[in-house]
Amino acid sequence: MPARPRLGHIQFLNCLPLYYGMVKNDVLLDVDLVKANPADLAVDIVAGTLDVAPIPAIEYARHAEDLVLLPDIAISSDGEVQSILLVSKVPAEDLDGRTVALTNTSRTSQVLARVLIAKRWSASATFVEMPPDLPAMLREADAALLIGDEALRAYWDVPEGLYAYDLGTEWTQWTGLPMVYAVWAVRRDYAESNPGAVQAVSDALSASLAYCRAHLDDISEYAARWEQFPAEKFRSYFDALQFRFEPRYREGLKRYLAEAVAVGQLERVPEIVVFGE
Amino acid sequence: MPARPRLGHIQFLNCLPLYYGMVKNDVLLDVDLVKANPADLAVDIVAGTLDVAPIPAIEYARHAEDLVLLPDIAISSDGEVQSILLVSKVPAEDLDGRTVALTNTSRTSQVLARVLIAKRWSASATFVEMPPDLPAMLREADAALLIGDEALRAYWDVPEGLYAYDLGTEWTQWTGLPMVYAVWAVRRDYAESNPGAVQAVSDALSASLAYCRAHLDDISEYAARWEQFPAEKFRSYFDALQFRFEPRYREGLKRYLAEAVAVGQLERVPEIVVFGE
Repeated sequence: MPARPRLGHIQFLNCLPLYYGMVKNDVLLDVDLVKANPADLAVDIVAGTLDVAPIPAIEYARHAEDLVLLPDIAISSDGEVQSILLVSKVPAEDLDGRTVALTNTSRTSQVLARVLIAKRWSASATFVEMPPDLPAMLREADAALLIGDEALRAYWDVPEGLYAYDLGTEWTQWTGLPMVYAVWAVRRDYAESNPGAVQAVSDALSASLAYCRAHLDDISEYAARWEQFPAEKFRSYFDALQFRFEPRYREGLKRYLAEAVAVGQLERVPEIVVFGE
Repeated sequence: MPARPRLGHIQFLNCLPLYYGMVKNDVLLDVDLVKANPADLAVDIVAGTLDVAPIPAIEYARHAEDLVLLPDIAISSDGEVQSILLVSKVPAEDLDGRTVALTNTSRTSQVLARVLIAKRWSASATFVEMPPDLPAMLREADAALLIGDEALRAYWDVPEGLYAYDLGTEWTQWTGLPMVYAVWAVRRDYAESNPGAVQAVSDALSASLAYCRAHLDDISEYAARWEQFPAEKFRSYFDALQFRFEPRYREGLKRYLAEAVAVGQLERVPEIVVFGE
């Protein structure tokens, strides 16, 4: 008997529109959905306890020899992203010689912050990893990287006297390219032995994204029922968030990985292998 | 902000029709679904990490002071259940002085087997707990209690030379009452502070059951796509399985708990408190 594909899911606000589409398309009947944070999903797929999962772009690159990517989905932005924010006591150009606190909940964004600080702002900073608590971070450091809910809160209400940088905006202004934060990875051996199941998951996710793009108002209202922000802010966030992975986005991913190598956070840029291509 | 109710789910075949109804009713948008086996769900709800969960009837009774029950749902049968089976080398009446292996995956059914052997069949047997592997069990013992997939396999194809007893059938023939295997429990403190959320979960589950009862053919076809039995066997199983908890079923539960006390597997029969009644 074929088993249902074991599909990872990121239970953060950024994947809520996709989840909504999956529920409305009854996808949860034909996959075994496992919810976790992206770093843990990466551990699970490398360990073989998941078949398909969204994982941080940088973790994909570190394990690329064991993985292939779904062709039509990623967590990405082309300009602002709102939920990845550098909050600083000084302008970013002045972070040279200062300390930056990086939220320990992030993988890809930690490296993105290091890249932008070193290369866009030509600053040589010291980095410390901390839990995502802005006041505590700014007691220990001059700037703080936040992601997710904490970042959105600061994005929509920048604390007085602080500078805030949307790292999606900064990346795209600097490189002219989109930024890819997470990719949907498939274990290579699973893809080779179950191409039909992988294609079915890929199609189901694409159909869910199509549904979600057509119902962003409903999804924003729904999000506002259960989460701490009003519907119009969700609508703005969901407009910024892209789930695209077409060629320009893949160029953005390659550039990001090359920059990660340049700042010493990745050994080499792997060949990006996409399922079915 | 209200958080979504944390709802447990049993990922066994017996709850597949309910899950199907939940997906088709988009229930998974408004609950945080946590899948586990019934014994672990009981641990989680008592520990407070779940708000509502299906748990073994016997575990409910052991923690009844902390729990209330949803009024319109249970895992129950009124006659045959198919998936709780005593397989024996001798007629059940002849188990006196013999050894019975009980699957370690069960809570309520272990006690049900002890009750029926002692009181319906007037046999005094020795019980050992073992993993659910029929040949291994029958090497060590004269009879074996199976539940779930292993029971269904044996039910539909009784191994030659063995006796098989459907414990749902036996219970109802003996008592004239239905049998309740699992109940949907709510933490009492959660129910007191969130009556609206509990009512919403109760309504959503009832709507899902109504959907599932109206679509048993579709659900049987769906089950056959992913599981190891053909659709007509699922249809027969899903007809036997009841999700009812009306007054006769509650009488069955009380009788079961009284018998559990009689055979020394429960200290006392608790007062059964039902949400909203």
